[in-house]
Amino acid sequence: MEPKGEKIDHPAGACYNTALPPPLEDEYKEVAWAVPAFDKEANAPRPIEPIWIARPKIGPHQVRFEMLYCGVCHSDPSCGLNEWGGCVYPFVGGHELLGKCIEVGEGVTKVQVGDYVGVGCMVDSCLECEYCKSDEEQYCANGMTMTWNSPKTHGRVLGNPETHTHGGYSGSSVTHEHFVVKIPEGMDIQRAAPILCAGITLWDPIRYHGLVDGPKKVVGVCGLGGLGTMGVKIASALGHKVVAISTSASKESMAKEKGATGFVVTKSEESLKANAGTMDIIFNTISADHDINTYLPLLKTNGIMVMLGGVTKPHTIYQMGLMFQRKTITGSLIGGMKATQEVIDFCHKHNIYPDIKMIKAKDLNEAWKALCEGKGDGVRFVVDIKASLQDESFLPK
Amino acid sequence: MEPKGEKIDHPAGACYNTALPPPLEDEYKEVAWAVPAFDKEANAPRPIEPIWIARPKIGPHQVRFEMLYCGVCHSDPSCGLNEWGGCVYPFVGGHELLGKCIEVGEGVTKVQVGDYVGVGCMVDSCLECEYCKSDEEQYCANGMTMTWNSPKTHGRVLGNPETHTHGGYSGSSVTHEHFVVKIPEGMDIQRAAPILCAGITLWDPIRYHGLVDGPKKVVGVCGLGGLGTMGVKIASALGHKVVAISTSASKESMAKEKGATGFVVTKSEESLKANAGTMDIIFNTISADHDINTYLPLLKTNGIMVMLGGVTKPHTIYQMGLMFQRKTITGSLIGGMKATQEVIDFCHKHNIYPDIKMIKAKDLNEAWKALCEGKGDGVRFVVDIKASLQDESFLPK
Repeated sequence: MEPKGEKIDHPAGACYNTALPPPLEDEYKEVAWAVPAFDKEANAPRPIEPIWIARPKIGPHQVRFEMLYCGVCHSDPSCGLNEWGGCVYPFVGGHELLGKCIEVGEGVTKVQVGDYVGVGCMVDSCLECEYCKSDEEQYCANGMTMTWNSPKTHGRVLGNPETHTHGGYSGSSVTHEHFVVKIPEGMDIQRAAPILCAGITLWDPIRYHGLVDGPKKVVGVCGLGGLGTMGVKIASALGHKVVAISTSASKESMAKEKGATGFVVTKSEESLKANAGTMDIIFNTISADHDINTYLPLLKTNGIMVMLGGVTKPHTIYQMGLMFQRKTITGSLIGGMKATQEVIDFCHKHNIYPDIKMIKAKDLNEAWKALCEGKGDGVRFVVDIKASLQDESFLPK
Repeated sequence: MEPKGEKIDHPAGACYNTALPPPLEDEYKEVAWAVPAFDKEANAPRPIEPIWIARPKIGPHQVRFEMLYCGVCHSDPSCGLNEWGGCVYPFVGGHELLGKCIEVGEGVTKVQVGDYVGVGCMVDSCLECEYCKSDEEQYCANGMTMTWNSPKTHGRVLGNPETHTHGGYSGSSVTHEHFVVKIPEGMDIQRAAPILCAGITLWDPIRYHGLVDGPKKVVGVCGLGGLGTMGVKIASALGHKVVAISTSASKESMAKEKGATGFVVTKSEESLKANAGTMDIIFNTISADHDINTYLPLLKTNGIMVMLGGVTKPHTIYQMGLMFQRKTITGSLIGGMKATQEVIDFCHKHNIYPDIKMIKAKDLNEAWKALCEGKGDGVRFVVDIKASLQDESFLPK
């Protein structure tokens, strides 16, 4: 379904400027912070600004929550700046939503009013296909509905069906209980939000490749931003030997503080050589263009590289290199709702949190810039929504 | 260890013209058919011709066998024509050796004089590393010794240590019993030889990816030459639904005769579309340059593509394509000795044989040409060694 509005050609794929309709009768007005439009004269998206959006009123099995914190993922700017193509403006980013339940619809059993709740990268899927039925809604054969920039296709996202989904840079939201996780009592809610994307993105392949219950392995993590550092923390909490891999020697102490016991500097031939053939699995969280042939030799025979970053530039791969040591390249995308609850509970139990930097909505443009320039440095930006709602200089008129 | 002789620059990698020394005291003279040298004036390898080579005399744990049949694999010309670089001339091809044991060294327990025996792609490895110890000698951490074109490094290949290994286009050979498989009584020895490479190359990933004992799957096979047709036969004997994939519609009836129940023509957009997302695993046996992005969409979510052909040109791979459906690209290389015995026994039990065309040594140049031009058409050439030895027009002086 092509969005209604003005279609704008773009090298990464067309994007769309649309006008948000006023709230319908079954919707209410809410504050959000959005990239309002693609500025054709400047040939660039406009900066993030406060706008009004419509959220659906409560319905059966729906959970309404006031937003407390929302993490900022690299894929927010990747989508919102149209690097992937297909952005529908106004674009409200944020898919690490941490809130407090303020209203529940008929039939809700998962949470109660007053519970802390989380919503990650998806808010609907068909729940009928083989993937949904095996708790992998992210691979829904009929296409999951993402928390932002998605058409509403399966019926569990209420409100105006002609608008796309809006993310968590906003005062509140309403989500079907299937796509809500319960935040355990006692969890540090200020730091929990990024687990809903960065945490699950690492947890799911860790789980899938047998690293939760299986034998201890040598686990490489390349890219030491929000994803990578969660990988370092979770894999070391599980008892694996974790080796951080970075272009920059300056990240060694940071990586070791987070649980890595080994470190590879990819700009050093010597370091690469010394670590060649030592790793069972590498979680590749790099989200910028890179040459994976630098990293593949670090794998042992039978080793696996799991691609996790939003890299659009293709890789050059030599199949005989894969054949001679039975090496594997695979990918993984977030995780299902069951696994998302698991990683929240696991992180709570083991006191694992992302390292965060709390910001306000008015800092979002700068935070996006830092992410795009690779300057996140292991720290996840989290928007303090309550504080942002009190900053009258950055609220919609 | 660089071979002694003349080093010749070549775009694929240097090759070497060497002079074979006369047999040492612990060696004997044997007929072989070889690419004798790289012709610098013609800038091409010379055609195959009969030559004398030296084979080692028997030693402890060694098995000497008269050669009866030797299969012709695509990798024979790939190596012998220096397409991979590194060929040491004279090059004696053939790594699907089927013979009759005529002498056993002290301590041999696996076979007796009179038994039919097979030797595949390797004749030695360290037998001490973790891979050798887990029956995957092909991934020996210290490097397996291949049946042809390999230096003799681990001590189980006797004879002159300065010459490289010579393959099965020859009157007899001597191999350590660890690298010999026993051909069961009653097996059709005329057709069994190609199982030792084409068969094991498919059997090992079929085994590794759980298709021997696991649930029934939809198995794609692309490339319908010697490897691919063995894949079709073995996978269908195991009860899987097998879909053959080819550029050419003309191969459909051939593929179906061999056990495929589905067929995809990759030149037809319609056929690709109708079969998109239907396969659990694809065995990619194509040995010429090709675009794997044509084939990846045929995989289901969680699907695996196993690369098996000797393709040197790199592939272009989009990681987000792998991520959004957790698709995997992996490789596999022949198989260990335990698995090689398994596939021989399995093929015997299920009466599975490659479709062969019996040739004589003098037909080798033409057979190589047919393979290089993709004209094998599901038929494996097998050299009848006994008949070749009776053809005086093509024996060494």
